[in-house]
Amino acid sequence: MSFEPLRGYWRNSAGADLIAALLVSLLLVPQALAYAQLAGLPAVAGLYASILPLAVYALLGGSAGVALALGPVAILSLMTAAALQPLAPPGSAAYLAAAALLTLLVGLFLLAMSLLRLGVLANFLSHPVIAGFVSGSAILIAASQLGHLLGIRGSGQSLPDLLPSLAAQLEQIHLPTLWLGLASVAFLLGLRLLRRYLPVRLGGWLVRLGALLLVLLGILASVLLDLEALGVRVVGTVAAGLPSLSLPPADLTLLHQLWPAALLIALVGFVESVSIAQSLEARRRRSVNPDRELRGQAGANLAAALTGGFPVAASFSRSALALETPVATPRVGLWVAALMLGAALGLAPLLQHLPQAVLAATILVAILGLIDLRTLRRTWRYSRQDGVAQLVTLLGVLFHGVETGILLGVALSLLLFLWRTSRPHIAVVGLLPGTEHFRNIERFDTLESRTVLSLRVDESLYFPNARYLEERIAELVAQRPQARYLVLQCSGVNLIDASALDSLETIAARLASAGLQLHLSEVKGPVMDRLKRSDFLERFGGQVFVSQYQALTALDPQLLETGTER
Amino acid sequence: MSFEPLRGYWRNSAGADLIAALLVSLLLVPQALAYAQLAGLPAVAGLYASILPLAVYALLGGSAGVALALGPVAILSLMTAAALQPLAPPGSAAYLAAAALLTLLVGLFLLAMSLLRLGVLANFLSHPVIAGFVSGSAILIAASQLGHLLGIRGSGQSLPDLLPSLAAQLEQIHLPTLWLGLASVAFLLGLRLLRRYLPVRLGGWLVRLGALLLVLLGILASVLLDLEALGVRVVGTVAAGLPSLSLPPADLTLLHQLWPAALLIALVGFVESVSIAQSLEARRRRSVNPDRELRGQAGANLAAALTGGFPVAASFSRSALALETPVATPRVGLWVAALMLGAALGLAPLLQHLPQAVLAATILVAILGLIDLRTLRRTWRYSRQDGVAQLVTLLGVLFHGVETGILLGVALSLLLFLWRTSRPHIAVVGLLPGTEHFRNIERFDTLESRTVLSLRVDESLYFPNARYLEERIAELVAQRPQARYLVLQCSGVNLIDASALDSLETIAARLASAGLQLHLSEVKGPVMDRLKRSDFLERFGGQVFVSQYQALTALDPQLLETGTER
Repeated sequence: MSFEPLRGYWRNSAGADLIAALLVSLLLVPQALAYAQLAGLPAVAGLYASILPLAVYALLGGSAGVALALGPVAILSLMTAAALQPLAPPGSAAYLAAAALLTLLVGLFLLAMSLLRLGVLANFLSHPVIAGFVSGSAILIAASQLGHLLGIRGSGQSLPDLLPSLAAQLEQIHLPTLWLGLASVAFLLGLRLLRRYLPVRLGGWLVRLGALLLVLLGILASVLLDLEALGVRVVGTVAAGLPSLSLPPADLTLLHQLWPAALLIALVGFVESVSIAQSLEARRRRSVNPDRELRGQAGANLAAALTGGFPVAASFSRSALALETPVATPRVGLWVAALMLGAALGLAPLLQHLPQAVLAATILVAILGLIDLRTLRRTWRYSRQDGVAQLVTLLGVLFHGVETGILLGVALSLLLFLWRTSRPHIAVVGLLPGTEHFRNIERFDTLESRTVLSLRVDESLYFPNARYLEERIAELVAQRPQARYLVLQCSGVNLIDASALDSLETIAARLASAGLQLHLSEVKGPVMDRLKRSDFLERFGGQVFVSQYQALTALDPQLLETGTER
Repeated sequence: MSFEPLRGYWRNSAGADLIAALLVSLLLVPQALAYAQLAGLPAVAGLYASILPLAVYALLGGSAGVALALGPVAILSLMTAAALQPLAPPGSAAYLAAAALLTLLVGLFLLAMSLLRLGVLANFLSHPVIAGFVSGSAILIAASQLGHLLGIRGSGQSLPDLLPSLAAQLEQIHLPTLWLGLASVAFLLGLRLLRRYLPVRLGGWLVRLGALLLVLLGILASVLLDLEALGVRVVGTVAAGLPSLSLPPADLTLLHQLWPAALLIALVGFVESVSIAQSLEARRRRSVNPDRELRGQAGANLAAALTGGFPVAASFSRSALALETPVATPRVGLWVAALMLGAALGLAPLLQHLPQAVLAATILVAILGLIDLRTLRRTWRYSRQDGVAQLVTLLGVLFHGVETGILLGVALSLLLFLWRTSRPHIAVVGLLPGTEHFRNIERFDTLESRTVLSLRVDESLYFPNARYLEERIAELVAQRPQARYLVLQCSGVNLIDASALDSLETIAARLASAGLQLHLSEVKGPVMDRLKRSDFLERFGGQVFVSQYQALTALDPQLLETGTER
């Protein structure tokens, strides 16, 4: 996607972009504040993270929809908190510095992935793993906000850490905070109820603007009732004005501690952003360039690192806007950035009075929709293995934290995947009488040669199944003492890797020592090209037949004669 | 394989088994001593590790060939040393206790793998990774024995640790030890040279007995010349007699430190043993039961743990014997165990005089054959990716030690494997005029419908390629503004996992929002069964056609008319 000429832009798209930007800003302001709190940073950092990063992304020319939805995201904020809380107390200068370094690393990983064209790495995250991760994270996020709602401080990156720490303070619950928090939650849920009785569009907007309304009401109530004097915790003094440009500290120990979290944040953020880009662009029959998307995300996160922000990505909740008010170019990001700059300048003085419980309520209600246990049931029914991967990821996140949870899920899904391909379907095939076709002898009424064993492997031959192939062939040969030849029909083999090549050589040698000759048939072009680069074809002692039928013609002509006689 | 009745055994096989056992014992004695030294244990531990473990394996009834070849193995001994040396000084009581615990863990892992039928885990180790690992380990083993040959003490688990530690002591080289070591190496290499001028069989035996001869000569020389007084290090006093049965210490910290190494040792030992079993059994047209093999290996290692031994497996060098003197039943292991028991009782008093340099020489010469850089070149030529995996494993072992090296190799081969399957071949297919067959439009002269886009995916649809499928389809659709239908020909799809199912739903929804309808054709039975367990078939809005031809008949009948007119 490229920029249209400026003059055309002002005439055609500027108005629509400005409106979309205005609408998304109304959503983004409360989210930015809340997600900063979730990440353990001052609320204003959320606003900062929504200015320069958006502008940089827009200038790098990624997808228009993503440009609109970019900014702080709940799950990345949780991951940020999980990575930083073991290293420094939230809100401290050391914490802020570590957040900037983490964001820098995220940007650098994304940049490296873009330069090395490694967007494919995101494929490690299978859908069940992502779903389990999102649900688990949402529950963790909800639990992490309970403390704010109750006026106490819970800490911990997993339920076994968090819940006892909250339980220990149950006696210190601050009642005014609790009432304020409950009222805020009730307000937001009330708006959702009200929505049912309103026209679709109006209702949608009411729910969306709910968070902003609540924030403004919260500030108003806080000032009017002097909630601070009652002991209700507020966001507190913020450095008003613009974020200052500064390089994160170059601390090698810290770097070493942060890089695994940064890599995961980069991957998760990229997967979320590229999914949004794809679903928005597909409607216009456009495809997404993942490497350009990576570059844009890299730029946005590097910009966030320089302006005291935290990792950013595109958010699903804000991307929904792009469906209703389609935007033409990533320039829309510049508008959002400008509006957020205005918000940072205008809101900063007011923000200090905003009660933390109000922000916690907005997070809590927003996050409820992400807890999706229906998908788990659906996945489980469809595939036991995928279901296990999803469940393990979810439980891993809840009980061992976000990083361990997602790593566990990825490792398990890889294991199950390997396990699944490690036992390919290998059929003994026979000739369908009157044709040249060979079919599974167990499913079809076929002619089978006594001296020629015909096998069809329905999978590429590579290391996960190389040894299985050896075992299976040994078994099948053991059952057929009269066999003199074994012909492997390779119509389903898209690849033979070095392990499988070794196995084929071993198989040929073992068969030879037992008095059998191995042959191949129907080897595909690319596979054949590769075999020619080794000395297998000279050494294995057999032939490569064009078709299984030809192989039988050569090796057991009698069968074909009697076969056609039948 | 089961036992023949005892009476028949004594009449038919006992004699042959005894001879085979006698021959293998002559090989095993010096290897057992040397590999114990390599593992950092007293030489006699090697003999102990060759008694009860062999008897237990024989009684559990594994493969006869493996029963003959079981015992200490060079690479497992190196892995043992690498795992233990960071934890305790070699030879100390703590070291011995840790060795027993490690062996116990290896046995338990093998037992668990057998009970859970996880022999398939060994498939993680692709052939290039194993080859790189073996060559790298062999070089490391050779380097680790240099110290013994020079009469100095080198330590370290990788070349960057080991070589500087040796270099720093170059001035302290002990000349009598060096001469003894060089003479020993020359003796063994001399026998190999001599072999060329002798009949094949005699020459083979001369080389095999070389190590034992050298050990006996070494003891003789040590006693006669009083080498100890010259400062030549000898094996030293050994607890004579039988190994005592004792449980390894139950130390949780130690357990935590040892389990990763134990898992790797279990996997490597199992892969080696099962390969030997397969190649020996295949000659007799028998197949190997990997789970029974696992059970036998588990029993052998648990027995080794109880008798102060170290991890055991079948050795390639000793298995060669089973080719020349075929053994009928695993009972042969009982004979070997009995003979090794005799050796332990008889040799122990003499062993204390055996110079360490002599053992180092036998290891050095034996290990040379394992350094195989030719395979690397061959793999590289056949497949760049497999070659990279092999090279990285080799370098990883050399520069970061055995554990890191093999983990690096496994991780890389998984990554490359994922990368390889993440971009499957997706062809736009058209009708071959006059037939019902569809072929790639870029390779064949075909009829293509304007309104129906026919795609064939040559790979199962699963998470590594689910996102790619979305991208590719978006691209292809973007190029064809007139398309109304997209038919996915699934003849090459053996599996659709939950991620791919999500992707298909997403694709269907995106196509619909762009005015296209998705259909499927030629979906295989098992895939269809699974799809029926989800609500995809009802929700995606399209049909599943039996064949691509039928789909075109229904969706673009005009094409077929004009097609057949041509």
